[in-house]
Amino acid sequence: MKPTHDNRWVKTITLSPPSLGDNTADADRLETALKKALGTRTVHMDPGLLKQLPARLREWDYRATTVLFKDAGGAGILVHLAAPDTTKALCGLAVDLGTTRVVLRIIDLCTGKHRGESVFDNPQIAIGPDVLARIHHVEKPGGLDQLNRLITDGINSRLRDLCNRCGISPENIHMVSVAGNTAMTHLMMGLNPRWMIREPYIPAVNRPDVFKTTELGIDVHPGARALIFPNVGSYFGGDLIAGILYCDMDQREETAILVDVGTNAEVVLGNRNWMMACAGAAGPALEGGVTRMGTTAGPGVIDRITIDANSLAIDIHTIENRPPRGICGSGVIDLAAALFQSNMIDIRGKLIADRCGDRFRIKDGLGHLTIVPADQSATGEDLGVTQADLDSLIRSKAAMYTILETITDSVGIRQQELETFFVAGTFGAYIDPRSAITIGMIPDLPIASYHSLGNSSLGGASRVLADPGCFDRINRIRDGITYLELNVNQDFMNRFSAAKFLPHTDRSRFPSVTVPANGNRPGRP
Amino acid sequence: MKPTHDNRWVKTITLSPPSLGDNTADADRLETALKKALGTRTVHMDPGLLKQLPARLREWDYRATTVLFKDAGGAGILVHLAAPDTTKALCGLAVDLGTTRVVLRIIDLCTGKHRGESVFDNPQIAIGPDVLARIHHVEKPGGLDQLNRLITDGINSRLRDLCNRCGISPENIHMVSVAGNTAMTHLMMGLNPRWMIREPYIPAVNRPDVFKTTELGIDVHPGARALIFPNVGSYFGGDLIAGILYCDMDQREETAILVDVGTNAEVVLGNRNWMMACAGAAGPALEGGVTRMGTTAGPGVIDRITIDANSLAIDIHTIENRPPRGICGSGVIDLAAALFQSNMIDIRGKLIADRCGDRFRIKDGLGHLTIVPADQSATGEDLGVTQADLDSLIRSKAAMYTILETITDSVGIRQQELETFFVAGTFGAYIDPRSAITIGMIPDLPIASYHSLGNSSLGGASRVLADPGCFDRINRIRDGITYLELNVNQDFMNRFSAAKFLPHTDRSRFPSVTVPANGNRPGRP
Repeated sequence: MKPTHDNRWVKTITLSPPSLGDNTADADRLETALKKALGTRTVHMDPGLLKQLPARLREWDYRATTVLFKDAGGAGILVHLAAPDTTKALCGLAVDLGTTRVVLRIIDLCTGKHRGESVFDNPQIAIGPDVLARIHHVEKPGGLDQLNRLITDGINSRLRDLCNRCGISPENIHMVSVAGNTAMTHLMMGLNPRWMIREPYIPAVNRPDVFKTTELGIDVHPGARALIFPNVGSYFGGDLIAGILYCDMDQREETAILVDVGTNAEVVLGNRNWMMACAGAAGPALEGGVTRMGTTAGPGVIDRITIDANSLAIDIHTIENRPPRGICGSGVIDLAAALFQSNMIDIRGKLIADRCGDRFRIKDGLGHLTIVPADQSATGEDLGVTQADLDSLIRSKAAMYTILETITDSVGIRQQELETFFVAGTFGAYIDPRSAITIGMIPDLPIASYHSLGNSSLGGASRVLADPGCFDRINRIRDGITYLELNVNQDFMNRFSAAKFLPHTDRSRFPSVTVPANGNRPGRP
Repeated sequence: MKPTHDNRWVKTITLSPPSLGDNTADADRLETALKKALGTRTVHMDPGLLKQLPARLREWDYRATTVLFKDAGGAGILVHLAAPDTTKALCGLAVDLGTTRVVLRIIDLCTGKHRGESVFDNPQIAIGPDVLARIHHVEKPGGLDQLNRLITDGINSRLRDLCNRCGISPENIHMVSVAGNTAMTHLMMGLNPRWMIREPYIPAVNRPDVFKTTELGIDVHPGARALIFPNVGSYFGGDLIAGILYCDMDQREETAILVDVGTNAEVVLGNRNWMMACAGAAGPALEGGVTRMGTTAGPGVIDRITIDANSLAIDIHTIENRPPRGICGSGVIDLAAALFQSNMIDIRGKLIADRCGDRFRIKDGLGHLTIVPADQSATGEDLGVTQADLDSLIRSKAAMYTILETITDSVGIRQQELETFFVAGTFGAYIDPRSAITIGMIPDLPIASYHSLGNSSLGGASRVLADPGCFDRINRIRDGITYLELNVNQDFMNRFSAAKFLPHTDRSRFPSVTVPANGNRPGRP
């Protein structure tokens, strides 16, 4: 027995042929070799594979290329059997199952390399834009089935196109891994999520077993298996577990923090010895908070803003340098930081009319600041922010900071001690940490501490297909997380109030942020 | 968590309901309780059950009656979920998959009691009477599929009738266990057995995993699982493993022996510390040997024969006291013993014409002995034995004895040391040990040492459904068996020749057998 591709799910196995002195059956002979190669106590084999086995082993002189996977209990599964040194594509599919967007990625199981990706809107958006709307839809007759079909049909249809582009067939896909929030993964498994939004907020399952893809309705090789990343609870999903796996927090000596701002703000703090997590879905203070800033990033959306401190001229950058049509989250954060540094908003985030000059006006009793005048925008209308937008941003950044403060405090760590600060998702990809520090959204750490992970959910889902060593870490990560319930109590509200200033009531926390001389002067409404 | 039916697969579980302080998901909550109840590291749950779970648990106030099983790796499987204290029948199906006959037995999983049985001819007999003919049929196009369908269709059809008689539906059956020889189980699993009869005699699988019954085509509850008893090799099947389980050889302090004479003669010797096995499919000496004696037992078949030592009157007993229509194996053994003790055959088993008197005649150069004259038989023809039948019996009994001698010798045990001698199957049920000893077929042990097990294959298959404690023993039994290859070498042939006398060349081995004074006198051909 000589396995190759030692660190892959694909292994080429050479068996000693049976003899009168060694008359172990074909399946048991292969299983013994696979157990050794995979380090498991058992290896399951579907009846379909078992039926082929004796003729195949003899045809191939007792050599075979095997595709292995595991179930949630750690038992091995032989998912595919191919001729030794096959040239057929042996692939896996990683899925980032977002509420808004779904990303598919094909992984070559032999090399671990990416062969292609497809990004598309979650088709369940047709039912409701957010998790809550979709969970409510489940109450309608056939609602659960409808939501389930929308996502599986969507994946199957996009996957066919993606496979075409990659020059493979869905039949070449032998394993699937899916990372998503708890509600999305429940809908994909056809599980009713209704109890997730009702006290005491219980999902149907925390650690789904590894499914046959046929049981999930995913059209790949019929022998393929699908791993659904486990969740810690209704508000802390498998996308975060995948993120932890992706940034190796569970293997690091130093304490790191991972912040994912997607539909919710989720935070994990920890190292190889412990992990503490919380999610920002904690009551009215955060409602509509961190996440509802600006337009979704896309061509023509303003993602970077600077203001010249002397001339107060506003300089913008748009994605793909297209004419501006909106401002995304990172742009709003840049803007707030720049407005604050140019003394155009005060420490409460209120627009200072005198400093804003022509750009400022009051409409319907609400302050407006124009960033791009109508004649320069792609929409033909003024692009800007209102005082309400800025108030919302202040609440968001205060919520974010309060969550970070609460979680570090809970384990007795000072924010300044954090050496590594991972920011996940599109938020992390676009945000300028300098601006986020300036408005006091994130702690005042050296910029080099901040690392943008990109799509860490997809990254984690991909890693487990490329590296069997990651498989066992998934449930260990899940089981090792202590979930901190964010109680919106007086303590929390006090912290939140103190964080509603720029950068913070306690300026000593942000030594790198220079506060304008008259930054304390209240602006006009 | 308070499981009931502690020693059954059916357990009623009471869970603590979820709360804000204990927000484990429904599936994981149940799994934790089931792992404790079953003593396993994981419990699998089919997606269908998982989908029902949250609503059911709430409907039942977090109590449920569960039906559990295990896979070959020892992981638990939740096969069914019912309301707590359900009155619905929860049953299992034990199958003795014989080459000639198949027996189905319904077991109540809550009580372990038998609810009913069905016995029928293996429908594959239409293809060929024995294992070899059926394996050859597999070479024909569609042959394997045809044999597979014959047995699964046969079981399904008989099972429907049996369920009707028992007042249940096949849907009430949640687990199946099948014990049969290696070829029959392969055909039932749809596995090609062609390599079993070709050197080096390799089955497709030794230890089949636990299958979904849907994968085997067995029409019971769609969530049900089927255990196929493992084999030690092509010639030592799961029926014997079931037999060992049934007689608890693997748990006994004292060394016991188990002899099963069915299609083959198989022997296991051992105790809780070791087991040695062999099968009498070992070359020409045994060919057509032990097994081809007389008619299959049934109404009107002579199963007991005595001969009055003085008058030489033959007294017969027929099954169900019906008019005689044939002689079964046990009848032939009784007859040979009686003929020998009445000095009507000599120590070589040759008919002594003088002593046989009117009953003896020569036809086509072959000696015939009439037992029942034509006018008293159900067939209207003489019933009797020929010298060829007796010669065949002598070879059979010599083969049996030689196998027993070989296996006890191999571990250095004297036959007289055996305290417990189990005889399985119909052979064991009908045979008179006294007669078998008299002809030197089995060792000269006290009659009380002999125990007829009846259908131990069915018995073992039933036990595993009634007692989860038996499950883990099955593979331990299999793995603990040392298989003794019967080499028909000079040593074996010497033993065989010595055993071809009545009771044996070495009379000291059979002190309880009185040899007639002139028993050494050669008879006429």
